[in-house]
Amino acid sequence: MFPNLLLKRAHLTPDRIALRFMGEVWTFGQLYNEANEFAERLHAKGIQPGMRIAILSSSNAELVIAIHGCLQLSCELVMLNERLSEVELNYQLHDSKPDILLIDNHERIISYSQRFSFNDIYSHERKAYSIDRDWPKERTISIMYTSGTTGRPKGVRQSLENHVMNATGSALHLGVHPDDCWLCIVPLFHISGFSILMRSVLYGMKVSLHTKFDPEKVVDEILDGAATRMSLVSVMLQRIVSVLENRNQHFPDSFQSMLVGGGPVPLSYLERAIERNIPVLQTYGMTETSSQTTTLSSEDAIRKLGSAGKPLFFADVRIDGEEKMGEICIKGPHVTTGYIGAAESKKPLIDSWLHTGDIGYLDEEGYLFVVDRRSDLIISGGENIYPAELEQALVKHPAVVEAGVTGRQDDKWGHVPIAFVVVTEQVTIDELKNFMETQIASYKLPKEYHFIDALPRNGANKLVRRELLKLI
Amino acid sequence: MFPNLLLKRAHLTPDRIALRFMGEVWTFGQLYNEANEFAERLHAKGIQPGMRIAILSSSNAELVIAIHGCLQLSCELVMLNERLSEVELNYQLHDSKPDILLIDNHERIISYSQRFSFNDIYSHERKAYSIDRDWPKERTISIMYTSGTTGRPKGVRQSLENHVMNATGSALHLGVHPDDCWLCIVPLFHISGFSILMRSVLYGMKVSLHTKFDPEKVVDEILDGAATRMSLVSVMLQRIVSVLENRNQHFPDSFQSMLVGGGPVPLSYLERAIERNIPVLQTYGMTETSSQTTTLSSEDAIRKLGSAGKPLFFADVRIDGEEKMGEICIKGPHVTTGYIGAAESKKPLIDSWLHTGDIGYLDEEGYLFVVDRRSDLIISGGENIYPAELEQALVKHPAVVEAGVTGRQDDKWGHVPIAFVVVTEQVTIDELKNFMETQIASYKLPKEYHFIDALPRNGANKLVRRELLKLI
Repeated sequence: MFPNLLLKRAHLTPDRIALRFMGEVWTFGQLYNEANEFAERLHAKGIQPGMRIAILSSSNAELVIAIHGCLQLSCELVMLNERLSEVELNYQLHDSKPDILLIDNHERIISYSQRFSFNDIYSHERKAYSIDRDWPKERTISIMYTSGTTGRPKGVRQSLENHVMNATGSALHLGVHPDDCWLCIVPLFHISGFSILMRSVLYGMKVSLHTKFDPEKVVDEILDGAATRMSLVSVMLQRIVSVLENRNQHFPDSFQSMLVGGGPVPLSYLERAIERNIPVLQTYGMTETSSQTTTLSSEDAIRKLGSAGKPLFFADVRIDGEEKMGEICIKGPHVTTGYIGAAESKKPLIDSWLHTGDIGYLDEEGYLFVVDRRSDLIISGGENIYPAELEQALVKHPAVVEAGVTGRQDDKWGHVPIAFVVVTEQVTIDELKNFMETQIASYKLPKEYHFIDALPRNGANKLVRRELLKLI
Repeated sequence: MFPNLLLKRAHLTPDRIALRFMGEVWTFGQLYNEANEFAERLHAKGIQPGMRIAILSSSNAELVIAIHGCLQLSCELVMLNERLSEVELNYQLHDSKPDILLIDNHERIISYSQRFSFNDIYSHERKAYSIDRDWPKERTISIMYTSGTTGRPKGVRQSLENHVMNATGSALHLGVHPDDCWLCIVPLFHISGFSILMRSVLYGMKVSLHTKFDPEKVVDEILDGAATRMSLVSVMLQRIVSVLENRNQHFPDSFQSMLVGGGPVPLSYLERAIERNIPVLQTYGMTETSSQTTTLSSEDAIRKLGSAGKPLFFADVRIDGEEKMGEICIKGPHVTTGYIGAAESKKPLIDSWLHTGDIGYLDEEGYLFVVDRRSDLIISGGENIYPAELEQALVKHPAVVEAGVTGRQDDKWGHVPIAFVVVTEQVTIDELKNFMETQIASYKLPKEYHFIDALPRNGANKLVRRELLKLI
C-alpha cells in the first residue's frame, strides 16, 4: 500500500502552493478540498469507486481538479488526447468502455452514452463517499493509448507503483527542493504532463500550468525565478533558445533542470542552449514506463552527445540482440503491468523485461543511445538504415530547420529512404545531396528530397514518420 | 526487486565522491571496487551468499567497506554496538548465531569460534562470486538489537525495502541535491548512522565520516561549506551551539538540515540554535523503523515546540487508546517485518501497525507529540537505556534480591539511570558498581545506588518505577 497521494500531501503541507494557473493559485489543502468536492458530486451522479472514467480536456486547472477528484473516488482514468480525430477518439472509447466520459465543454465533437461536462458535474448535488486513506500499489491510476510498433493503439495501464517509483527515481536523479516549481506546458493527457502532477503531490511541489506553449511567456516566468524545472520536447527547446537570443538574455542559476524528451537534441541547438545557461537533461521515456527511464545529466550533454543518459535508480536497461546494437529492453517498478481492451491479453513483459521495439546501444560507460524506433527501421538491400541518423545529418545543414526521413517501397532495394526538409533559406536539392554525401555512407543516402512547410507531429509533438509520404 | 544499491550507484555516478574519512576520499566507483574485493576475500574464506555476519567495529572507512562488501556477497549483517559489555555482546552473538564475527582489530575482548579481523580478511586470497544485479525487497540488510519493554534485547530485521523507503521518504521531506554531503558523527552500528550510508548510495551523496564527535571539528567543516546535512542527538546540538557562540559564528545558508533525534530539543537550546542559523529538524525514529518516522520542519520548530513533526510521505502514525493520548502506532514500508533469534516468533505488527510502547498524541493539525518513551525507557544522551535490562543485571549479584531502575532528569544527558536495590546481605555501593561494570556498557551504568526495604508495587504486584524517586 501507498498513501492516498493528495490526501497525504494535503495533510503534510496544506499551505504550500500546489498549482498556479492563469494568475490563480491553489494550496494543497485547497486542491484537496476541491478534488473532494468534485468526487462527491461524481458520486452523487452514481459513480462508484473502481469505475473507469475517460477525460477529454485541455490542460487547465479544472482538469487538474477533475483528475484528482476521480482519483479520490478511487476511479481509474482514461486520459484522451484532445488532438485526435473523432475516429481515433471513438476507437479509444470503444476499446476502453469507460463508465462515463468527462469533457471540459460541450464543443467537443465526441459523443458517448454517458457524457458529462465538468459544469454538468458542478451543477450536481454532493454525496459523501468513503475516503481511502491507503491505496493498493497495483491500483491503476491512469490509462493512456499509445501506438507502439504496430500502429494499432493500445491502452496502457499506469499503476500507482509505476507513478510513485518513477517520481522517486526522478527525484533521486534530478534532486528535489521544497521551493521547486515545475513549469508544465506539455499536455496533461500525455505522460510527460501527467507525471508532473504525480511529482507535485509526492514532492509537495508547485506546478505552474500553461494550456499552450508560448516561448515568450515561458522565458518571462523563468527569468522571474518563478519556475525552477520544466519538461518539453526538443523542437520547443529551440524556440526558447531563440527567444533568449533575440533578447540577449540567459536563464538564472536558480533554474535547475530542463527535461527534454522526444529524441536527442542536435549539437547546434545544444550548444546554443548551453550558451544561454539552460541545464538541458535529455531523457528517454514512454507511456509504458510512466515517463522517464533514462536521463542524461546536463554536465554530460556534450561529452555524450546524442545519448539519452543512464537509467534512473530503480530502472534497468539492457539491449536484446546478438550485436552491440539491438532492441532496448526496460525493467523496473515503473514499467506497466499490462494493457486494457483489445490488447489486454498481450503481455508487455517477457521475464519482467519490457521489449520496447526501439533500437539502441549502451556505450562502454553504460550510457544509452537510442538509434531509432523499430517501426521506422528502413531495410534497404539488406542493410539497416535508421531515419534518425539521416535526419540528424540533414539538420546540420545551415538551411535546414527540421527533417524527417522515411522508407518507401522499392522494387530493387526493398525500401529506400526519402527525405523531407523544412528550410529557412533558399537551398537546392543538389546542394543538399552534395552536403549529405559528406555526412553519410552512400548506401544510406536519401533517394529523394522534398521541401515541406512543417513535419507531421502527434499530440506529444513527436514526428510521425509514417505520415510523411502522404505529403508528396 | 530493487537494484543492488552500491553496484547501481557506482554505475550511475562512478566519479562522484562517496566517502570522506580522515582526509582520504573514495568515489562510488572506488568504494564499489574495494567492497567487491572485500567480498571476494570473504568468499575465499568460505563465506557464502545468504550467510549472517556480525560486525564489531568503530565507525571508520574500513567498516564502511566491510559493510558494503558483506552486502555485495548477499550476506546479512548483525551490527554490534562497540560500547556494550562482554556479557551483552555474548548474548547477542549467542542469539543471532552469525556464521562469522568480523572485528576491526584483535584488541576486542570478545571471543567467537569464527572470529576474524578486517586484516585477517585482507591477508586472504580472492575468489570470484556471482554478483547479484537485483536484490529482493524483503532481503534482510541489517539486524540491530534493541531491548523493548521486557528488557531482553531482540534482534530487529531491517529489510532492503525498509531502508529504501525510509531513505526516499526522507528525501521527499528534506529535499536532496547532487552536491549534498551528510556529516556522520553518529555510530554506524546504530540506525542513525547506518541509515546515512543507505541514503548515500540511494542519493549519490557524499558522507563525511567522523569516528568521534568533536564539536569544534564539526563546526569547522560546516563553516567550510563542506557538509550540508547532519544527524545528531539533542545533547550534541547544545555543544555545537556553544562552540558557535564562543566563536561568535553562524552556520552558512548552504547548510540544509540538522536532523535531531533522541527527544525534543528544549526551548532554550532551540532558540540559541536558531540564533546561530542552524536549521533544526527534530525527528522521531527507532531501530524498528530503520530511522525516521516523523520529522518536524525547521520553520515549525517554535510554533510546534516539543513536537516530533508529521509522518514522512510513506509513513503513517495513529494513537491507540480511548483518550487523545495513547500508544503511538506506526505503519509503512519502513517498518520491520520481524525479529530473529529468541524473539523470532514474536510478531511486531498487529494488523500492519507497529505498537511502539511509546506514549503520545497528535494535535489537531496532525503533529506528533511524544510524551513519554515506553514507561520504562530512559534516553540518556540520545542512547536508549532499558531499566529492565539493568534490573536483571543487578539481581545477578548474590546480595541483591530485587532491583528497580528509573530515570532522573539531568541537565547534561537529559536523563540518567538511578538504581534501587533490596539486599539480603551486606554489600557496598562500590561492590555493586564494580559488578555492574562487568555486566553492562559503561554509558548505561546507574549514576546512583540506593538501598531500600522494598520496591513500590501495584495491586498486581508489578513494579511501579515512577514511585521510585520518591523513596530517596
